[in-house]
Amino acid sequence: MFPQEIIRHKRDGQAHSPEQIQALIQGAVDGSFSPDQLAAWLMAAYLRGLDSAETSALTLAMAASGERLDLSSLPRPWVDKHSTGGVGDKTTLVALPILAACGVTAVKMSGRGLGITGGTIDKLQAIPGFRTDLSPAEMVAQAGRIGIALSGQTPNLAPADKILYALRDATATVDSLPLIVASILSKKIAGGAEVVVLDVKCGRGAFMRSLPEAVALGKALVTVGRESGLRISALVTDMDQPLGAAVGNALEVREAIGALMGGYQDPVARLSVSLIGEALALAGVVSDRSAGEDRAREALTSGAALRKAQEWFAAQGASDALWEDPDAVLPRAPATCRVFAHQEGWMGQIDAGIIGQAVVNLGGGRRRKEDAIDPSVGVVVHVEVGDEIADNEPLATVHARTDAEAEAAARALSEAFSIAPDPVAPRPLVLG
Amino acid sequence: MFPQEIIRHKRDGQAHSPEQIQALIQGAVDGSFSPDQLAAWLMAAYLRGLDSAETSALTLAMAASGERLDLSSLPRPWVDKHSTGGVGDKTTLVALPILAACGVTAVKMSGRGLGITGGTIDKLQAIPGFRTDLSPAEMVAQAGRIGIALSGQTPNLAPADKILYALRDATATVDSLPLIVASILSKKIAGGAEVVVLDVKCGRGAFMRSLPEAVALGKALVTVGRESGLRISALVTDMDQPLGAAVGNALEVREAIGALMGGYQDPVARLSVSLIGEALALAGVVSDRSAGEDRAREALTSGAALRKAQEWFAAQGASDALWEDPDAVLPRAPATCRVFAHQEGWMGQIDAGIIGQAVVNLGGGRRRKEDAIDPSVGVVVHVEVGDEIADNEPLATVHARTDAEAEAAARALSEAFSIAPDPVAPRPLVLG
Repeated sequence: MFPQEIIRHKRDGQAHSPEQIQALIQGAVDGSFSPDQLAAWLMAAYLRGLDSAETSALTLAMAASGERLDLSSLPRPWVDKHSTGGVGDKTTLVALPILAACGVTAVKMSGRGLGITGGTIDKLQAIPGFRTDLSPAEMVAQAGRIGIALSGQTPNLAPADKILYALRDATATVDSLPLIVASILSKKIAGGAEVVVLDVKCGRGAFMRSLPEAVALGKALVTVGRESGLRISALVTDMDQPLGAAVGNALEVREAIGALMGGYQDPVARLSVSLIGEALALAGVVSDRSAGEDRAREALTSGAALRKAQEWFAAQGASDALWEDPDAVLPRAPATCRVFAHQEGWMGQIDAGIIGQAVVNLGGGRRRKEDAIDPSVGVVVHVEVGDEIADNEPLATVHARTDAEAEAAARALSEAFSIAPDPVAPRPLVLG
Repeated sequence: MFPQEIIRHKRDGQAHSPEQIQALIQGAVDGSFSPDQLAAWLMAAYLRGLDSAETSALTLAMAASGERLDLSSLPRPWVDKHSTGGVGDKTTLVALPILAACGVTAVKMSGRGLGITGGTIDKLQAIPGFRTDLSPAEMVAQAGRIGIALSGQTPNLAPADKILYALRDATATVDSLPLIVASILSKKIAGGAEVVVLDVKCGRGAFMRSLPEAVALGKALVTVGRESGLRISALVTDMDQPLGAAVGNALEVREAIGALMGGYQDPVARLSVSLIGEALALAGVVSDRSAGEDRAREALTSGAALRKAQEWFAAQGASDALWEDPDAVLPRAPATCRVFAHQEGWMGQIDAGIIGQAVVNLGGGRRRKEDAIDPSVGVVVHVEVGDEIADNEPLATVHARTDAEAEAAARALSEAFSIAPDPVAPRPLVLG
C-alpha cells in the first residue's frame, strides 16, 4: 500500500480498513510514511473524520507500535484512572492509594503538564527525592511488592502516538475528537490497562469548555475503548472552578496529603471516591458503583489509603518526614500576597482558566514542552462557589518567587472571582 | 503569523488574505514553514478550496519566490504559449517559430515530460548537440539577436512551486484545480510572460479526461491569470487521439520538421496556427483571432517560420544537416514492428492514453522524475479518426530497442484502435 493511496482514501471521505490504519502507523514508526505524508493524512482525517471502528483500529495500532507494559505477573484486574487534565487536579495522588488499599493493584504511567493543566509527574517531582523515572521492570516489581507504582511514560511506549502528536501540534490538527481519543486510549492500552475509568474535565480550566463537548469526548472514549477491548467508563466532572484549594505543584501535594489524612470532606477526596467507586464496579470487584464508593470511602476514612500512600512514596524515594511536617520537606516560595474580596455577597464564579494561567505566569507551568517549572509557586484558593463572602475577606493566597511577581499575580487573580449579590448554589463535582 | 494560524484558517474553511498567502510561500522557501505544515495546508486547501483571489495571490507569491526572467531589454509584447500536456504534443516546436516569424519575440521556458505526456525539452534533447540549458542571460541575448529562445527551467525560477509540487506528489494533493492553476501560471509569470495563450488538452491522452473538466481548468486559468495581471486566453483542444502521427521524442522532432516544411496540412501545423492566431490577437498585434490565424498561416506557408526554426536550432547547437536529412541526424531505434487492421470500416477511436503508455513502456517516457529516456523509440500512427480503413491496412509502426519490445508494444497497441462498421466524423482539433 502506497502512502498516497491511503491518504487519497481518507481525502475522498472513505473509511479505512484496519490494514490501512496498520500500514499508516507502521509507516509512521519505520519512516516509510514521511512526516509530510502523515501531516496530510492528519488534516484529511481532521476534516473527513474517522468513525469509531477506524478510531479503534488507530488506537490498537498505536498501542502496538512500541513496548507494552507487561503486567502478567500482577494479579488482575489491571485498572487505570485517567484525567483529561484540569487546573488543580491532584486526584491521582489520592485515588491511586485508595485503589491499592481496596486490594486492586495500581500501576500507572503519567504525563507532564502543558499550559494551564498540570501533570501528575510534575506534582510528584515537587517532593524531594521522589523518583518518577522507574523502568517498566522496576514498576512491575514495586507493584508486585506493595500494590502500587507510578512513573513517567517511557519513550518506547506508543511511539506512533508521540510522532503523530508532535505533528498535530505543528499542523493545527490537535482538536480532532477521534485523534484525541486514539491518543489517550493507545497509551492506556500500551500501559497494560484492561479496566479504565476516565475523568473528563469540563469547564474554563479544561480542554473541553462546554458540557456537550465534554460529554461527546466521554462518549467517544467509551465507545472506542469498548471496541478496542477495554472495560471503560467516563465521568464528566467540573473544571469551571479549580479542583480543591491548591494550584501549583508543591501546594497540590500538600493538599493531597491533607485529603489522605483528613477524611472525606475535601473535594479531591470526594472525587477520588467517585472515580475509584466506578472503577471497582467496572472491574467486578463490587456489584455496583454505590458499593464501590462505600468501599473506597472506607479505605480513605480508615487510614488504609494513607498507609498505602506512605508505602508508595517511600518506595519511590520520598522521606518519611513528609508525612510529619510537609511544610518543612516541600519547597516553599519566598513571597506571598493575598487577594481580597471588594464586596460582600456569595461567590458566583471562580475562573479556573485565569487561575491556571496565573500559575503558569508564576513559573509553575509550561508554555512549551521544554520549559522548566518551579515546584514551589502557585495559588491557594480559600473559598468555593456558593460560599457566603464578607467584604475584605481573603479569597486566595499567591506563592511566588518575588514580591513583584506575587503582586502581579494577585492583580490578575482578582478577575477570577465574581461575587453575586444573591445566594449561589455550590457546583456539583460530577456533572454526568 | 504562526504557521498553525494560517493552517487553521484554511482548515476552518476561511479565505486567506494575500498577506497570509505571502507568509505561507515565504515560509516555504525560507523553511519557517516545515514540510509537514505545508503538507497539512495543502490538504486543507485541497478539501476546502481556494477562491480565485486566493489562487491569484498564490500565483503571484510563487512567481515572486525566486528569480524572474527579465525581458525588459526585448521588444514587447512578451508572449508565451503553454500546453497542459498531451500525447504527441510537439506544437511548441512549430508554434514558436511561427510566432517569431510574425515579428513577436518568442522566449520560453519549458519542462520535461512525466508519465504519458511528453515534454518539449525531451523532444529537443533528441537532436544531437541541441542545448536546452541556456542561462537566463543567454536566453535573453539569443532572443535579442534572432527573436527566439527556449530553455529548460532554471532551479531558481518559482522555487516555491517546486517545493509545493514535490509535496503534492507525495501527499495525494496533485489534482486540485486552484493548486494546478497557481503552479502553471506562477511559472509563466516568473518566465517573464505578459501575454499567455493556453492549450488545454482534453481526452484520453491528457490530464483532463472530460470536456467539462478541461473547460473548468481553462476558465480557472483565464480568471486567475487575469486577476494576476496577464492578458490570457485558453483553447481546449482534442487529446483523445494523439496530436499528429508521431509519439516519441526523435519521431516527434521529425514530424515537426515536416510540418514546418510541408505547409498547412499537418494537424500540428493547424493547431499551431490556431494558437498563435489567438496569441497575436491577444497581444494586440492584429485586430482579432481570424486575422491572427491568417498572419500565422502566411508565416508558415511562406517558409518564414521554417527559416526562423533553422536559425533557432542552429543558435542552440543543432547541425544544419538536420534539415537536409533528418533521418541521418536524429537517433533511430533498431527494431520496428507494424500494427495492422483486422477488419475493414472506419477508424472510430485512437486511444492516446494507450499509445502514450506504450511509448513509456518502450523507454520513451518517464514513470518517475529521475528516469532516463531513450529518444529514439516511439510509435508512428498512420491513420486518423474518421479515415476509411481496409482490412490488413497498417495502422501504426512501433520503433523499439529490440524486436521483443516492438512486438509487445504492437500487441498492446492493437487495443488502442477501434474500427466502426459505419462512417465516423473526424474529430475537430479545437473543442472550445
